Amino acid sequence: METTLVKTIYRNTEKFSDKEVKVLGWIRTIRDSKNFGFIELNDGTFFKNIQIVFDNTIDNFKEVAKLPISSSLAIEGKVVITPNAKQPFEIHAKNIFIEGMSSSDYPLQKKRHTLEYLRTIAHLRGRSNTFSAVFRVRSVAAYAVHRFFQERGFVYAQTPLITGSDCEGAGEMFKVTTLDLNNVPKTEDGKVDYSKDFFGKETNLTVSGQLSAETMALAFRNVYTFGPTFRAEDSNTARHAAEFWMIEPEMAFADLNDYMDTAEELVKYIIKYVLENIPEEMQFFNSFIDKGLFDRLDNVVNSKFGRITYTEAVDVLRKSGQKFEYPVEWGIDLQTEHERFLTEKVYGKPIFVTDYPKDIKAFYMRANGDGKTVAAADLLVPGVGEIVGGSQREERYEVLENRIKELGLNKEDYWWYLELRKYGETKHSGFGLGFERILMYITGMSNIRDVIPFPRTTGSAEF
Amino acid sequence: METTLVKTIYRNTEKFSDKEVKVLGWIRTIRDSKNFGFIELNDGTFFKNIQIVFDNTIDNFKEVAKLPISSSLAIEGKVVITPNAKQPFEIHAKNIFIEGMSSSDYPLQKKRHTLEYLRTIAHLRGRSNTFSAVFRVRSVAAYAVHRFFQERGFVYAQTPLITGSDCEGAGEMFKVTTLDLNNVPKTEDGKVDYSKDFFGKETNLTVSGQLSAETMALAFRNVYTFGPTFRAEDSNTARHAAEFWMIEPEMAFADLNDYMDTAEELVKYIIKYVLENIPEEMQFFNSFIDKGLFDRLDNVVNSKFGRITYTEAVDVLRKSGQKFEYPVEWGIDLQTEHERFLTEKVYGKPIFVTDYPKDIKAFYMRANGDGKTVAAADLLVPGVGEIVGGSQREERYEVLENRIKELGLNKEDYWWYLELRKYGETKHSGFGLGFERILMYITGMSNIRDVIPFPRTTGSAEF
Repeated sequence: METTLVKTIYRNTEKFSDKEVKVLGWIRTIRDSKNFGFIELNDGTFFKNIQIVFDNTIDNFKEVAKLPISSSLAIEGKVVITPNAKQPFEIHAKNIFIEGMSSSDYPLQKKRHTLEYLRTIAHLRGRSNTFSAVFRVRSVAAYAVHRFFQERGFVYAQTPLITGSDCEGAGEMFKVTTLDLNNVPKTEDGKVDYSKDFFGKETNLTVSGQLSAETMALAFRNVYTFGPTFRAEDSNTARHAAEFWMIEPEMAFADLNDYMDTAEELVKYIIKYVLENIPEEMQFFNSFIDKGLFDRLDNVVNSKFGRITYTEAVDVLRKSGQKFEYPVEWGIDLQTEHERFLTEKVYGKPIFVTDYPKDIKAFYMRANGDGKTVAAADLLVPGVGEIVGGSQREERYEVLENRIKELGLNKEDYWWYLELRKYGETKHSGFGLGFERILMYITGMSNIRDVIPFPRTTGSAEF
Repeated sequence: METTLVKTIYRNTEKFSDKEVKVLGWIRTIRDSKNFGFIELNDGTFFKNIQIVFDNTIDNFKEVAKLPISSSLAIEGKVVITPNAKQPFEIHAKNIFIEGMSSSDYPLQKKRHTLEYLRTIAHLRGRSNTFSAVFRVRSVAAYAVHRFFQERGFVYAQTPLITGSDCEGAGEMFKVTTLDLNNVPKTEDGKVDYSKDFFGKETNLTVSGQLSAETMALAFRNVYTFGPTFRAEDSNTARHAAEFWMIEPEMAFADLNDYMDTAEELVKYIIKYVLENIPEEMQFFNSFIDKGLFDRLDNVVNSKFGRITYTEAVDVLRKSGQKFEYPVEWGIDLQTEHERFLTEKVYGKPIFVTDYPKDIKAFYMRANGDGKTVAAADLLVPGVGEIVGGSQREERYEVLENRIKELGLNKEDYWWYLELRKYGETKHSGFGLGFERILMYITGMSNIRDVIPFPRTTGSAEF
């Protein structure tokens, strides 16, 4: 007998009325009386469980009635519509086949567990309601990203993770090596002899695919990366992981406004796609994780995002009368408290802050005519603060070269990046969206460790 | 004036007839006579160029006529259908705006370059016909993978790259560390003190996401990974890279046949999707890279893949009378020469070889009843040999535990993997498809370095 997915029955209940089906899944809850019992079965493909009713007409009634939670079953039975019950239908079991027995010490019993505890059983937490919803959102949101760009003709650029260069000219990186750490080979002058390493030179895990993506944009016009990036920052916060996924579009013939248009469209697209495609999961988050979630997301989807300059933002903050932990003056990097005040209290919707002081931004951002600012923009959203960062890239060879020198970067490391400015430069722009950042925003989960299946953070690389 | 993509005009030529458009792009070729000239412009979003006709009625005729290849332009002009010419239409320029001048030493001149040379200018090679086609196939094929699984309700599992465990119980791995290699901290007994490292223990780059994916499959039933994996193998071949992308589906309640059904469907789906969506690129490969390409791909798409056991395969090979470099006997790992002979000469279509000797397969593959073989299967395709490897996974706790001991693996490293067999095991299966492997198959490109934007191989991590 063919098996039927639980989702299929939920989406076509009428059609299945009184039909015989075979379903597979794991026991979420089970209770029994003397002659009958109920199983909440989850088949993994859908957020909701399916109610199975069984009684002592099945051969193995006693055995089934005693099954521990999480045992896996195959069930043949009839779909019965139940208009007056909590659930729209149930399955009256004819046969229950036990595929795999669980054990009574199964760690995910019915009682509520803390998110901290669930992290210690990351191999099982996908079976809980919360993480069943989180990781399905992650999957569907990832697909939304690909759909968005592919529908628009962007080329997916899978840029390298092992790199000899440090994109941001900053950022602490993980070393990648095959040298024997017990016996590191040294050169005559006592330094590490990287010529003996796998790549014949020092290599690290990348902090960004942007520079590689720019080479692709100047061939394909519109490209995007979507892959893992790494930061070896020793910061044990709820928002930082050592390994996370980034989306980094780069667009030739595009200026700062084009980037902002695309980023606004992308953020709205992802949220709408998730809301439309997995409403049960989103309803769960709105009910149990963050009661203001739908309001917040609706506001993002339905607002025209604002655009103000950094200089205006500083003015607004200074004149607000609000006391901030970090005092505001022109030249500072905006802190989360400032960002949230702007987007939540002042504008009440997402805003782009543009034209930041060059000294707090990266070397590749395009210098504005004022000599003080660069054509950068960050997207701030209510509830979080910065969610997207991007800029127009410096396309002028000499200006870029001077900036590299000014900052003491090694020009030789950037020969190919500079050459892009020599052979058919165009104005071009791009941005980075931290995938976990937007997942936290969409789900209301407040710790990055809870939107990554197996998170890697300072001091922790379990599983 | 809004800009129009070249692809849009190609796909709707009649609609654009005699219309004014603005196009952007880079000069691929340019030639001029005294009073007029022709530009082949490529805008990056489409494989084909667009022919621009300009004459001395434009202000900057002389300047334009002298532009080096790869200069970037914005062109306003009229679309004129040209029924008798090589190209279906051309644009008669009214205005040509020079966005970025290239230089006369642009390395991609019109003459044909070797693939080896193009690797040395990987930052520019996407602008050549060949790599414009390769990387667009890569992008579209990646999207096909996501579509295939998402349409079928599989959850995309982004499994970690930094790992404390070695999935295959084999495979040379890259170390990931933030220790100072000039001064590696040591414990009292002279060993590397990993407690001082970022994660507080020894970590490596993963060779497979499979074990993590299995945890997800036992929560979500059907999942897939699609991400980078790493091998620090010192093998300088045309088929090995140190960093490559893998697709690794895992399916609960699935046996070996279910895996083979899914893998067959997936391979056919990717090929068909690419052929249908970017026919111009595929035509290029069939004409200039591999004249037998379409025949080979058609054969894959239209065959019902065969299925034979390893034992049958060995018999067939031994009885074939064919001389092999590596002699065939039961127990050997099949070499590419054997695989290709089977799929090309004997069966003339893709075949799965199943039930390999357990001693040449990984510890997690399900033991068959014969005590000698495991429920593994490799997919062999004409022209290449193995393209997919997979198996039913050992779901029996004791059998798996014994196998781990037998092979001298450290049971503690697998505590969570073993627990999957304790709390609601199901039969389950999965496989791995090397993304570059199938890209090479689809394009006819014979070196893995030519299907990765910036390849990482032994001794080479440039750009």
